[in-house]
Parts: sequence; structure tokens; C-alpha cells
Amino acid sequence: MTTIQDVARHAGVSVSTVSNVLNGRTDQMRADTLARVEHAIKMLQFRPNKLARQLKTGQTPLLGLLVPSMANPMYSYIAREIEAIAQERFGYRLVIGSTHRTSDREASFFEDLLAHGVRHVIVISSLSDERHIELAVERGMTVVSYDRPATLGQPSLIEHVTPDNFEAARLATEHLIRYGHTRLAFATVSGMTMSRSNKIRGFLAAAEHAGIQAGAHVFDSGPLEDYGDSVIAEVGYALALQIANAPARPTGVVAVNDLLALGLMAGLRETGLQVPRDVSVVGIDGHFLSALSNPMLTTVELPVPEMARAMVERALRRRDANTEVEATGCEAIFPPTRLIERESVAPPPQEGGPGAPQQPSATRNP
Amino acid sequence: MTTIQDVARHAGVSVSTVSNVLNGRTDQMRADTLARVEHAIKMLQFRPNKLARQLKTGQTPLLGLLVPSMANPMYSYIAREIEAIAQERFGYRLVIGSTHRTSDREASFFEDLLAHGVRHVIVISSLSDERHIELAVERGMTVVSYDRPATLGQPSLIEHVTPDNFEAARLATEHLIRYGHTRLAFATVSGMTMSRSNKIRGFLAAAEHAGIQAGAHVFDSGPLEDYGDSVIAEVGYALALQIANAPARPTGVVAVNDLLALGLMAGLRETGLQVPRDVSVVGIDGHFLSALSNPMLTTVELPVPEMARAMVERALRRRDANTEVEATGCEAIFPPTRLIERESVAPPPQEGGPGAPQQPSATRNP
Repeated sequence: MTTIQDVARHAGVSVSTVSNVLNGRTDQMRADTLARVEHAIKMLQFRPNKLARQLKTGQTPLLGLLVPSMANPMYSYIAREIEAIAQERFGYRLVIGSTHRTSDREASFFEDLLAHGVRHVIVISSLSDERHIELAVERGMTVVSYDRPATLGQPSLIEHVTPDNFEAARLATEHLIRYGHTRLAFATVSGMTMSRSNKIRGFLAAAEHAGIQAGAHVFDSGPLEDYGDSVIAEVGYALALQIANAPARPTGVVAVNDLLALGLMAGLRETGLQVPRDVSVVGIDGHFLSALSNPMLTTVELPVPEMARAMVERALRRRDANTEVEATGCEAIFPPTRLIERESVAPPPQEGGPGAPQQPSATRNP
Repeated sequence: MTTIQDVARHAGVSVSTVSNVLNGRTDQMRADTLARVEHAIKMLQFRPNKLARQLKTGQTPLLGLLVPSMANPMYSYIAREIEAIAQERFGYRLVIGSTHRTSDREASFFEDLLAHGVRHVIVISSLSDERHIELAVERGMTVVSYDRPATLGQPSLIEHVTPDNFEAARLATEHLIRYGHTRLAFATVSGMTMSRSNKIRGFLAAAEHAGIQAGAHVFDSGPLEDYGDSVIAEVGYALALQIANAPARPTGVVAVNDLLALGLMAGLRETGLQVPRDVSVVGIDGHFLSALSNPMLTTVELPVPEMARAMVERALRRRDANTEVEATGCEAIFPPTRLIERESVAPPPQEGGPGAPQQPSATRNP
């Protein structure tokens, strides 16, 4: 069996350097050293002895991951990226749970993780209230929270990794404005998560910057019973009917995420409106499914692999380095990668032309 | 089994309140609240201490789940169903791993599960070779395998839960034949998993039954490097180009699953062919995404919640009942729920009419 000494010898570095790589302490490391160690680990198929490490540290090499719903393709994509890095780089496996964005389910999952000896957790939640998560930190867990920034001026026990949601929505909105749209909608699930609030702020900021804030409106779903599976797409579908029947019908829509955009496009089609001839749609996520829609969805791509790497490193590094829990709101905000231009955006329809909103109802006749 | 949620519901308090009681954080609590929670714990005979249970039984209340890739929306949907039943009904959490359908990764995941004390595993794999899984059973694990039937006449240590893949593909093919299609394609990822072989057999059986076996062909992807994320959709896209350029172009296509069907429709669109005017497409799965495509995908729905329930019950029940491992190939085969007729199937184009295959190449001119 390959040992850590073999890896060190093969890479021409010290055992502690290999140990630093295995534990994610690489920020002070030269890039070529890191590359040599990673190459040696791969070449020699080195697998850290988990049981020995567990006995030594009293820790189970498991990483907890809470997601709103595993069945949501965006979360399963993020989970897959987190898993790959946790597994290939750190030798950790994933304990996963769907929490439907409720504090109760999140708290109950934390209880179970504690009982199982899991001490490293990534939470995809973005609920405004983090108190139940801070309790877990006080009890010895290292927690990284995704998709909500730290509260300004408030020290936090939790590290935060988040896309720049404000900027993502601003970019999407600016793109519609550049095409000449002046009546804009932001289509979203209800519920005041930080990420949604920030996207709404980005949408409104872009409209205000262009002087068209009077034509920019938020359409939301109303309260949701559950948070599972296809619900986001169904919300998009329902919002399409609302938007189609709005008095001064918006010609450009930013969807809070790609899945909602897909549901929205299906709903618009049902009302007889064509994307992009009558209504233009921009998503946020850059999920691979957005390239399969008809028309293909224009969307703002988020840097998922980079964010996943940052989450895993932060979740596993602090504890292994035996650092004290720091009461500072460490956060990393990732700007969107790019706007992917596809087929779902066109200039707005001419007033009086086909698809122009003259009648309040645009529902297809039966 | 009583869960912390049951106690909270019974006492009319939140889960975190119950958790506070269980962990002795009661100094801020009203006396009557504490009394209600303690009464509910007693009434429901709630035994919360998993660590104690683990020490007593040597078992961790964790269920292992191996999937080809978490990022595949169908597997994340199945995983979500498995999680819900394991959690709500049995109080188990999920340790999940993406194995990319390789025996190496599967075997390594089993090693880790054993080291973590996990003794109940569900494997979504359908690799023909199950030897590495049987080894795990011999070492004390209860394993349920999804999506491959037991080998006929061979006793197996593994329980099998599978959709009737033969029947699903047969139904899909029969539907196309009923619409008058005589040139048929089955579009699939390569690699001889049992489920794919059985679907191909169902496709060919339907064609033979209609006397059109000469016009029925299998289009496959060739060997794949990896099995992650968007690859199935990409295979569908590539197969669309093959099908569009086939000498006697098929007018009806059965896709091995919905995700491949979505990629196929995107690819057909790229060649200038219209679904269903020029080519009809039927999927298999009934995933919620198939209702969002344009045109909406006609598909054969599989009974995912029922299969998930059967898998969890078999994985957890045998061990809990302290039964000996039986060397019989127990299997449960679930017929497809129904064929969902949507918009992606129409009668084949008239010979010589628009979309009829006169030229070998139907690629859109640049």
C-alpha cells in the first residue's frame, strides 16, 4: 500500500508538505509544488488511510451537505462538484440531506450529523436566519454557508461562499436593456432568501441606471407549500400566465434561475406567446439543461466548480489546521463567469406589431 | 420509528425546542413547554441517541447510495425519493457517491462504507459484473441493486429492484408503430448494462411483432470516456446528427431515457429537422423535465416513488429483522406506470413531402 512517505519521495517534497496538500493548506504553497504533489498522489493512487486518521482524530471522514432539494438539477450539479473535490482531494464522503429550506429540517439534520461524528458541513440554504447554524458551530462544527453573504458589520461563526447574485441579475437585466427592452419583469419564487433579495436589487439597479425603473416589476409566486422537485419549474409556468396577462405586458423577463426560466418558457408557449419574438427571457445559473431548451436559453453562468472548491477547502481546512473558531465573517463572493448569449433574447416587438401587448389577455383561444 | 419531528409535532413545538431538551439546554425554557416535550418523548418512546444505538448494535444509521452521477437529474430524482423514505420512515441519513459506472469506483466506495460502519447500501449501477458487490455482501452488507434483474437461474446475494425495461421500450416503440412509423431508431449510450440490453430487446420485439424488424436500428454513442453531468444529453445531440444522415432516415426514435431524448431533440433541431413533423421522439423515464421541452416530450413513465420505497424497505428491513442473508436472487420488477402522450409524436411525413428523407444529408445549410 502506498504511504504518505512514498508520495513525498515521488514528489521530492517533505511529508508535511504532502500533509498540507491533503488537508487543503495550500494557500502559501508554490503552484508547481502543489502540482507535483497532486501528480504523485494520482500516479501512486495514494488513498489516505481513513480509518487510521479517524481513530487518531476521533473524526469520521464525512462531509455533511444540506441542500434545499436534491431533485433540483442545479443543486445536484453543485453537490456533484462538491463531492468530486471532497473525494478526490481530501478522501471525504458526502452525507447529504434535502431540507426544503426550513429551519426545522436543517436543525434536525445538524443533530444527526453531530450524533454521527460529522464535524464539517456545507449548507446551501440562504435562509435569512442563521441562528440554528451558529448553534452547530458553537458545538464544534465547521460550517460553510452557500448563497448568502455575511451580514454586514456582524461577526459570524460561519464562512460564506456565494455567487455575486446582485451582479448576476444586473448583467442579465442590462442585456435585455441593451436589446431595447423598457418593460421588464423579474420572475422569482417568493420567500426572502438573501440570494433572491440580492438578485432583485441587481435587477432594479440596472433598470434605475437606464432610467426605466417605472417599467420594472417583480413577479413572484406567493408562498409555497413545499420546496421539492419540480416546484420551481411549476412556479415559472404559473408566472408566465401572470406576465402574459399583465396590463402593460413586460417584453423582457429575467428569471431567478434557469429551472424557473425553463418553466416560464413552457408557460409562455401555452399562452401563445413566442420566445423571443414576443417576450425575451434570460436565466441565471448556466446549467447544462439551459442549452437544451427550444429556444436555447440565454443565461448568466455562475462559476460552480470554483465555488465548490472554495466551499470544500474552507469546510475541511479550518478544523484540520486546529485553528480556533474565529468569530469573523469570512466570505468569498464569486462574480458570474459570463453571459452566454443563445436564442431567447431579441429586440422587443414593435408597438402594434404581432405580439405587441394591446389586449390585457394574451391567452390562446381554446 | 419515531422521529424528532414526530415528537415536535406531538408536543406542538419546533424541532429545535425538542433538540434543546435532548441536549439539556432547558434553562431558558418555560416549564410547561419542557413538560410537554418530555411527555411526548415518553409517550412516543422516542430514543434519540444514535451514537448509543451505534455502540450497541455496531451499526451507523446511515444508508449508502451509489449513483452513476448525482448531476444526472434522473438519478438525483431517485436519490431524493430514496432519501425521503429512508429519513421519514426509518430515521436513516444518506451517504452518497457518484461512481461513473466503473467497478473501481464502486469497489472503493464500498470500502469506505465498510470503514464507516455502513451496512445498508443501494447501488444504482446495472453493470453486468456484480462480483465486487457480492464481495460486500459476504462481508456483512445488505445490498439492493437498482436497474438490473437477477441473472436467470443464478442465486444471488443481492436483492434487485428494477423497472421492466423491456416493457418500457416495447410500449414506447409500439406507440410509434401505432402512428404508422415503419423506420425506427433506438438511440442509446453504449455499454452493455442490463437495463440498456433489455430496452433494446423490447424495442426489437415490438418491431418484430409488427413485421418491420428490417426497418428497426439501434444507434449508439460508441464508448464514452466519462459518465458525468451533461454527457447523456450530449450523446443524444450527437446521435441526432447520425440519425439525420442515415441512408433510410428513421422517422420514429425511442430514446433510452428522457435526458438523452432532450439532447436528441436539440440536435435534430440543429440539423433543420422538426419534431414531430419530420421525426417523432419518445422518451423513457417520465422525469418532470420532459414536460418542459418544446415540443413537450411523449414518454414512458417509470414508478420512481414505488421503486424507491421497495429499495429502502429491502435494504433496511432484512438487517433489522435479523434475518440471515439468503442466497436467493430476490427481485422486484416494476412495470412502467403509463405512456404520457404529449407533443413529440405525429404520423410519419409523406414520402416526397416536406421532411421526407430523400437526400442522405439533411443538415441545414450554413
